[in-house]
Amino acid sequence: MSVNPQPGSTDALAVTTGPLPGSRKIHVAGSRPGLRVAMREVELEPSAGEPPVRLYDTSGPYTDPTAAIDIGKGLPALRHAWIVERGDVEAYEGRAHRPEDDGLKAGEAIAVPVFDRAGRRPLRAKGGAAVTQMAYARRGIVTPEMEYVAIRENLRRAELGAALRDGEDFGADIPEVVTPEFVRDEIARGRAILPANINHPEAEPMIIGRNFLTKINANIGNSAVASSVGEEVEKMVWAIRWGADTVMDLSTGKHIHATREWIIRNSPVPIGTVPIYQALEKVEGRAEDLTWEVYRDTLVEQCEQGVDYFTIHAGVRLATIPLTANRVTGIVSRGGSILAKWCLAHHKENFLYTHFEEICEILKAYDVGFSLGDGLRPGSIADANDAAQFAELETLGELTKVAWKHDCQVMIEGPGHVPMHKIKQNVEKQLKLCGEAPFYTLGPLVTDIAPGYDHITSAVGAAMIGWFGTAMLCYVTPKEHLGLPDRQDVREGVVTYKLAAHAADLAKGHPAARLRDDALSRARFAFRWRDQFHLSLDPEKALDFHDQTLPAEGAKLAHFCSMCGPKFCAYKISQEVRDIAAEQGMAAMSEKFREQGAEIYQAEKPAAE
Amino acid sequence: MSVNPQPGSTDALAVTTGPLPGSRKIHVAGSRPGLRVAMREVELEPSAGEPPVRLYDTSGPYTDPTAAIDIGKGLPALRHAWIVERGDVEAYEGRAHRPEDDGLKAGEAIAVPVFDRAGRRPLRAKGGAAVTQMAYARRGIVTPEMEYVAIRENLRRAELGAALRDGEDFGADIPEVVTPEFVRDEIARGRAILPANINHPEAEPMIIGRNFLTKINANIGNSAVASSVGEEVEKMVWAIRWGADTVMDLSTGKHIHATREWIIRNSPVPIGTVPIYQALEKVEGRAEDLTWEVYRDTLVEQCEQGVDYFTIHAGVRLATIPLTANRVTGIVSRGGSILAKWCLAHHKENFLYTHFEEICEILKAYDVGFSLGDGLRPGSIADANDAAQFAELETLGELTKVAWKHDCQVMIEGPGHVPMHKIKQNVEKQLKLCGEAPFYTLGPLVTDIAPGYDHITSAVGAAMIGWFGTAMLCYVTPKEHLGLPDRQDVREGVVTYKLAAHAADLAKGHPAARLRDDALSRARFAFRWRDQFHLSLDPEKALDFHDQTLPAEGAKLAHFCSMCGPKFCAYKISQEVRDIAAEQGMAAMSEKFREQGAEIYQAEKPAAE
Repeated sequence: MSVNPQPGSTDALAVTTGPLPGSRKIHVAGSRPGLRVAMREVELEPSAGEPPVRLYDTSGPYTDPTAAIDIGKGLPALRHAWIVERGDVEAYEGRAHRPEDDGLKAGEAIAVPVFDRAGRRPLRAKGGAAVTQMAYARRGIVTPEMEYVAIRENLRRAELGAALRDGEDFGADIPEVVTPEFVRDEIARGRAILPANINHPEAEPMIIGRNFLTKINANIGNSAVASSVGEEVEKMVWAIRWGADTVMDLSTGKHIHATREWIIRNSPVPIGTVPIYQALEKVEGRAEDLTWEVYRDTLVEQCEQGVDYFTIHAGVRLATIPLTANRVTGIVSRGGSILAKWCLAHHKENFLYTHFEEICEILKAYDVGFSLGDGLRPGSIADANDAAQFAELETLGELTKVAWKHDCQVMIEGPGHVPMHKIKQNVEKQLKLCGEAPFYTLGPLVTDIAPGYDHITSAVGAAMIGWFGTAMLCYVTPKEHLGLPDRQDVREGVVTYKLAAHAADLAKGHPAARLRDDALSRARFAFRWRDQFHLSLDPEKALDFHDQTLPAEGAKLAHFCSMCGPKFCAYKISQEVRDIAAEQGMAAMSEKFREQGAEIYQAEKPAAE
Repeated sequence: MSVNPQPGSTDALAVTTGPLPGSRKIHVAGSRPGLRVAMREVELEPSAGEPPVRLYDTSGPYTDPTAAIDIGKGLPALRHAWIVERGDVEAYEGRAHRPEDDGLKAGEAIAVPVFDRAGRRPLRAKGGAAVTQMAYARRGIVTPEMEYVAIRENLRRAELGAALRDGEDFGADIPEVVTPEFVRDEIARGRAILPANINHPEAEPMIIGRNFLTKINANIGNSAVASSVGEEVEKMVWAIRWGADTVMDLSTGKHIHATREWIIRNSPVPIGTVPIYQALEKVEGRAEDLTWEVYRDTLVEQCEQGVDYFTIHAGVRLATIPLTANRVTGIVSRGGSILAKWCLAHHKENFLYTHFEEICEILKAYDVGFSLGDGLRPGSIADANDAAQFAELETLGELTKVAWKHDCQVMIEGPGHVPMHKIKQNVEKQLKLCGEAPFYTLGPLVTDIAPGYDHITSAVGAAMIGWFGTAMLCYVTPKEHLGLPDRQDVREGVVTYKLAAHAADLAKGHPAARLRDDALSRARFAFRWRDQFHLSLDPEKALDFHDQTLPAEGAKLAHFCSMCGPKFCAYKISQEVRDIAAEQGMAAMSEKFREQGAEIYQAEKPAAE
């Protein structure tokens, strides 16, 4: 990889580019010009005698050496023509930018570079229409976005036999081959969402649903100490390089609006936000000063910028807040606690709940997805699956149906901290209460006692809940509960969640998931070290770890490794065993041996057994 | 912590000593003088108003500031009097040490310091008796070792209410309070083992069984590059500092015997080995040259030294080896591949299988436990739960009953690489085929595609299999498949497995497990940062991560943290919510609100729903 200084820009605008080792970018053509689906291909050593392994690729043009990257210009608007040709949107002036959008007082100058929109105006639906993928799907339309997703999810699935179909899917409905029509039907039924704000045409379409590959989200956000806009864009680029399917921008403080513009214009993945954070900035941090008007204004602002989904804590209701009073860790969601405070301060129902239909009206005009927030999620093992949590989930189920009435796309956020034996119940209740809308969970962490290792405690829960049916897993980094993640923490968190999501796909019996495991294991057994590294989720770390013990170039060709050395190598001996067996026709011999009754100790077992 | 240079010794003999931050060593007295069970206590800040939290402690005297540590002398022989007073053992000259025990040729000088046994002679059973904990248990005897274990496992369980009993134990039989009689009965039934070679009196008794706390093992071993004996002892001390319950010495090459002596004399935890590794050294690495006589001699050598359990691959049978021929990764167990090669080269049944009763005769004379090796465990997702694996498990079940006939203690080793949906079947088959003998698994890894992160892929499987009933989890480090673990890898691997084991205990509903989670979560919610760190599995890393963002001393007293800052802190707001709620008598109000029917959107739902 290289950090790519931009022509005519400062180093602060540089981002990481270049392919992962051993990978190249390919594009698979769809049914129309301009519909080209990006994938990664790992070329294997000639001795493998195997075709390249095709992998799902979230990294966008940044890993394409032929792409010209200039974050000052943003990514190409690959969906623009598709959006416009539907004839149901119009460009308009948009809401006027105000200093408080960036946390500034009137007259205070903005201290970061401002992205040049080059006159581009926001789009919105004409005349109250719903321009959501769900609206199209329900009308039977297969959009180019749906076709893109089908090709992307499918990888080489059509070429596979049924032999790899092996798993327990708990009632999911994963097809042998993903067709555009299947994508459409899943979206129409609300079982999957395709987050695609019409003002974020740079995004490569992707889908979140139980019957598709399990996705992961990475959180980024500005912080008081380190934040040039280049660094913020780089956080996103870095997270998708390792495999983040969506990125949430959780920024607070100053320059939220300006920074978000840089991120969205350069993001090939959907961007999510929690609008209440920015709304709270606009009322200078006083939760009780929040109003529907300030919040509404913030929604429109972010819809026009191109945010693809919003976390909305409309399920934190006045009546359920007291259910948290005796919890060990109370309310641990930031958004949830802000709204709880507002409700109690005014002794009024949550304004997100009372204005929910108005929110739907706004979101459907831009196709922004709901991510219904779990403001009362448990923050400790003690609070898992309690009355507060499930009361909120019931409300979220109710709101899901309201949103669907407006053709809005919806997913549901989930916990949190949950011991292993209580995880399955979460998925079962969510599927039932929310009509199979996609579940999007944070971990869950399966114990509270390992700060510093919470990417791991949560990966255990994430892998399991993904297996049971969660559609997207929100990552946790090693710094969870302790501090702000740095670059290596983000990488560690993303790769950890990729392995959890992949483990879930394997266990669900996803028909293509095992291809990569098998290719890597064959490489391992045949001592194709480079192939093993290249097929890894983190090829650079695999190589680095190998080199720490055996740095020499020749060791990558060696038929042994540092763990056992040449004399004790199980693989080497095992291959010798295979050769001898072939020579001796062992299978037949073994059969004969068995027939003769080979259990020496059987006769000596006590009679009672 | 400090690295403690020994009086009169070189730096090479220094090991890590001193308590973990916030912890102190305590001793709980048993029914006889000299029976003092070591535990750790974490003292909380006065503002907590809570008693100290008592934790299971594997670290031995090294974390006791009052203990005089001199690895040249070894640890005190705490079990010696108990062993001798039973009157069934005798000291004898023992097998003469031979140069090949250390991989040396006749006349070649040993190049490492030799531990001074100060004339101590090995013990063995008198006249063919079984001096195993199982033999005593079956005669109804509660040994001091059993009493020690009961006190150790119990911690503060007697003081607890039943409210924490919450879990799914899949038919386990975990008692409210562990009594010495319960320990005895579990050992007598073969459902638990207490590894305790009479020649390792330095070990603090511990128990491995499904109805006790889930244990973890860490592997160490000499390596060509770095190996002074001091370093080898330090590897063990370091692993138990972070929580390893047993340590396996997987050394190969030169000075195996001399190094093992240093490790055992200084180890407060049971030591396991794979004797075939040393036997193979004695025949210069040629598997086909192995003989029963060489192997037998190695067993006696290690029994006399004090090894507590042996991995014995007696289940790799001639007839089942061909079942591995079409596997993706063949035979991945080193011991398994060595024996497979021997079987095929001679076209004879595995000599460990044919001589199994003789092995029992040896092991029962020293109380060395069997760890029946899974030489045919799957090394990839593709090979999981296949015919070879389960054929071997069937043989291990057969051998378990043979060993029990001789009063030998037995546990059963398990996989390996297994996707999540195939994990449970492993435990169910093992419990059934092996009469509930304890299961001891390596991971399993739930995907093959994450080299560099295999401590995590395997922790997912380990937590799950522990929940389902595995008694001990063998750790995996981040270097698995790639290289030799260094000090930080060992720490990372041990802590990762501690969290997996703890997650398993929580999910099984172990009555005391949640105490620590709750104490830590209360500390977290109350901003008692130091208490949070001290209750963590790795207090040093938790502190370090916190300090990377907020290094100031005052931040450890702050009622917020770096993630959200003071304005957005969910905990802070949540506590305000609690205060307001108390003021307003919210519970009553909420009830009233509910009665009035608060579901605004209910009336608007489509009639069909």
